Amino acid sequence: MSNRWGTGRIESFSDGVFAIALTLLVFDLAVPASAFDNLWRGIAHEWPSYLAYLTSFITIGGLWMAHLGIFRRLQSANATIMRLNLLVLMGVAFLPFPTGLMAKAIRDPGAERAAVVFYGVTLLVISILLRVLWDAIVQHPELLDPSVSAHEVKPIRRASLPNIGFYVAAIALALLLPQAAVFGYLAIAIAAVWRARGDKSPQPEQAQVA
Amino acid sequence: MSNRWGTGRIESFSDGVFAIALTLLVFDLAVPASAFDNLWRGIAHEWPSYLAYLTSFITIGGLWMAHLGIFRRLQSANATIMRLNLLVLMGVAFLPFPTGLMAKAIRDPGAERAAVVFYGVTLLVISILLRVLWDAIVQHPELLDPSVSAHEVKPIRRASLPNIGFYVAAIALALLLPQAAVFGYLAIAIAAVWRARGDKSPQPEQAQVA
Amino acid sequence: MSNRWGTGRIESFSDGVFAIALTLLVFDLAVPASAFDNLWRGIAHEWPSYLAYLTSFITIGGLWMAHLGIFRRLQSANATIMRLNLLVLMGVAFLPFPTGLMAKAIRDPGAERAAVVFYGVTLLVISILLRVLWDAIVQHPELLDPSVSAHEVKPIRRASLPNIGFYVAAIALALLLPQAAVFGYLAIAIAAVWRARGDKSPQPEQAQVA
Amino acid sequence: MSNRWGTGRIESFSDGVFAIALTLLVFDLAVPASAFDNLWRGIAHEWPSYLAYLTSFITIGGLWMAHLGIFRRLQSANATIMRLNLLVLMGVAFLPFPTGLMAKAIRDPGAERAAVVFYGVTLLVISILLRVLWDAIVQHPELLDPSVSAHEVKPIRRASLPNIGFYVAAIALALLLPQAAVFGYLAIAIAAVWRARGDKSPQPEQAQVA
Repeated sequence: MSNRWGTGRIESFSDGVFAIALTLLVFDLAVPASAFDNLWRGIAHEWPSYLAYLTSFITIGGLWMAHLGIFRRLQSANATIMRLNLLVLMGVAFLPFPTGLMAKAIRDPGAERAAVVFYGVTLLVISILLRVLWDAIVQHPELLDPSVSAHEVKPIRRASLPNIGFYVAAIALALLLPQAAVFGYLAIAIAAVWRARGDKSPQPEQAQVA
Repeated sequence: MSNRWGTGRIESFSDGVFAIALTLLVFDLAVPASAFDNLWRGIAHEWPSYLAYLTSFITIGGLWMAHLGIFRRLQSANATIMRLNLLVLMGVAFLPFPTGLMAKAIRDPGAERAAVVFYGVTLLVISILLRVLWDAIVQHPELLDPSVSAHEVKPIRRASLPNIGFYVAAIALALLLPQAAVFGYLAIAIAAVWRARGDKSPQPEQAQVA
Repeated sequence: MSNRWGTGRIESFSDGVFAIALTLLVFDLAVPASAFDNLWRGIAHEWPSYLAYLTSFITIGGLWMAHLGIFRRLQSANATIMRLNLLVLMGVAFLPFPTGLMAKAIRDPGAERAAVVFYGVTLLVISILLRVLWDAIVQHPELLDPSVSAHEVKPIRRASLPNIGFYVAAIALALLLPQAAVFGYLAIAIAAVWRARGDKSPQPEQAQVA
Repeated sequence: MSNRWGTGRIESFSDGVFAIALTLLVFDLAVPASAFDNLWRGIAHEWPSYLAYLTSFITIGGLWMAHLGIFRRLQSANATIMRLNLLVLMGVAFLPFPTGLMAKAIRDPGAERAAVVFYGVTLLVISILLRVLWDAIVQHPELLDPSVSAHEVKPIRRASLPNIGFYVAAIALALLLPQAAVFGYLAIAIAAVWRARGDKSPQPEQAQVA
């Protein structure tokens, strides 16, 4: 029982960070007073903000579901998991910054490429951190819930975690077509929410079925 | 037991989003420094902000009570419920944006109609999502708490969920009389909080009694 | 068992609102860039902000402790308690607005009186709501934890709830000496935290002893 | 059982404050629209903001881990612990203010010394408060979990709490070399997260081993 934490407060603290990061995104939505003459057009004109909002909201939602999927298999945490979890949360809490930047830079030919790549790299780093977190757990099977059997670990990994390859491809796309890449990020986020599964024992053949 | 989530973290995550969205509303309240010469008048002059604040606060409070009423009948969640819940939370987290827009646009003849309709449509969408969530639960009675009997499902739906018809009527009113429609939204919110009930087994004849 | 809520999610939702309102207060603290030439003086010059911050932080902390003291005696909540709790939370979530106003208005002879009275009235209203909440609970002894005996109700009320009379006196003082009244609010907040007690069964003669 | 609180809501309230303070730090990150011509350079130019963000994020993360380490040894809280915990939370909730100040003042020769010292003093005060909190607990062994034996108290203290001496040294360094001192604060934060341990019974000889 040495060097272990119960997972209760880790989960509630993490839930707090996910929920706050998600809710703070709304601060990037605004219609300038100068657009009040034709407010419907002013609202419509802010579409890059809504796209960035939607993408980040669903991304954080999917990350929370992946986090939930990881921690429900966990019985206790060691120091490494605490630190990696803190890094994952730092990425999530940081996300409103590149989100706001991307929302403002879309339609600015000189800035949108950099903003969309920067946003994608942030998502890539979070995905890698989440995967490292899961791998660190797998290396210590004594931390896992006894109901998780060894041959389930790999399908859980494949079914639960964000796909790093997709993010690399979307970032590459961002160098050519920044606006298309944003829809790519959105598609990855929707797929992550779609693929997240709650069962403790997914069978490989079921893992792709919603 | 395949493809199920426990409801504990879903509830705590959702509570977080509701609580944060509710508390962030205060950022739309401000008295400009130019009104400090006659501060009481400056405070009173901001009444559209208070009206928008009050309406959104009570609306989110009522949505939280409806959410609480739904999840207390739930034993576990499947993937569809997770996704629909995330969409409901997106609506709630988005609400501060139309709230702030409405607070600023009231008294601006060219903008108030659009702002009040936009606000109402947001509330309508959240209400529909909450109803779809409840219907998705009812289709899977195995997710419900065993203490909820089949003939209770309909009265729970009627007693717990925001009234979609009322929102349609208030949005129609907003096209003619925007300021009156805001009071309509407020009345719907107060009615929702008033009608919310904590009993696990409301009898149809009691459902309207506070 | 009709028309009752468990208190778990009410407490976690309320904790969220208290914690967020408390933490958002920091947004009223800022040193303008023009004061960077002599930053220590610039930091010191913002003392009204720190005073308002300190007062609101300790006030919300004391309200949270009073809320904790009320709900630990509660076994379940009825619809009236849900609604009154929502009103208390609305007051708490609203508090950053008069706090910021007071911080800005101190040292402005034309505005400080109104701002300090407005702040005090907000605190008075929250205190009254909290007392009404407790009285609503006492009228339904079946909601109370069985370990709370009837003769303990009054000392709990006296020991746990903010003193309404003190707020009336501080508001009266604000009409004459606004800055002194702010220190009065601070003193009331410190006294409320000081008097809050965790015991389930305070004896009247112990109630004033820390 | 007189004058005691259960620790459940204290922990969830504290988790909320830590999580919110952590997540609000992102508001100090922004790239001005004037830097959109060369956005990569504009992003890179904000390094003092990232350094301040990183330092405060890891510091709050470490404080949360220390808080978790303290409260997991606690069975119940008395009034003194409630008040000291509230003071610790006030320090944590206050931290975004000196963080933002430091981020803005770095590279301003006239302001950076004061800003970096002010930031360090805030961290020093929080560390002292956390130590006073732990000492207040140790004076009432009846509050501790029965599994914590008397001879473990000192190693827990040494292993879990932020090092006050390090902060004094970093503040002294800030008087000479402000920018170097910021890296000192960061190093202290990383060391605190590194040293935090989850075991209930650390052996003295293990206490420095991660």
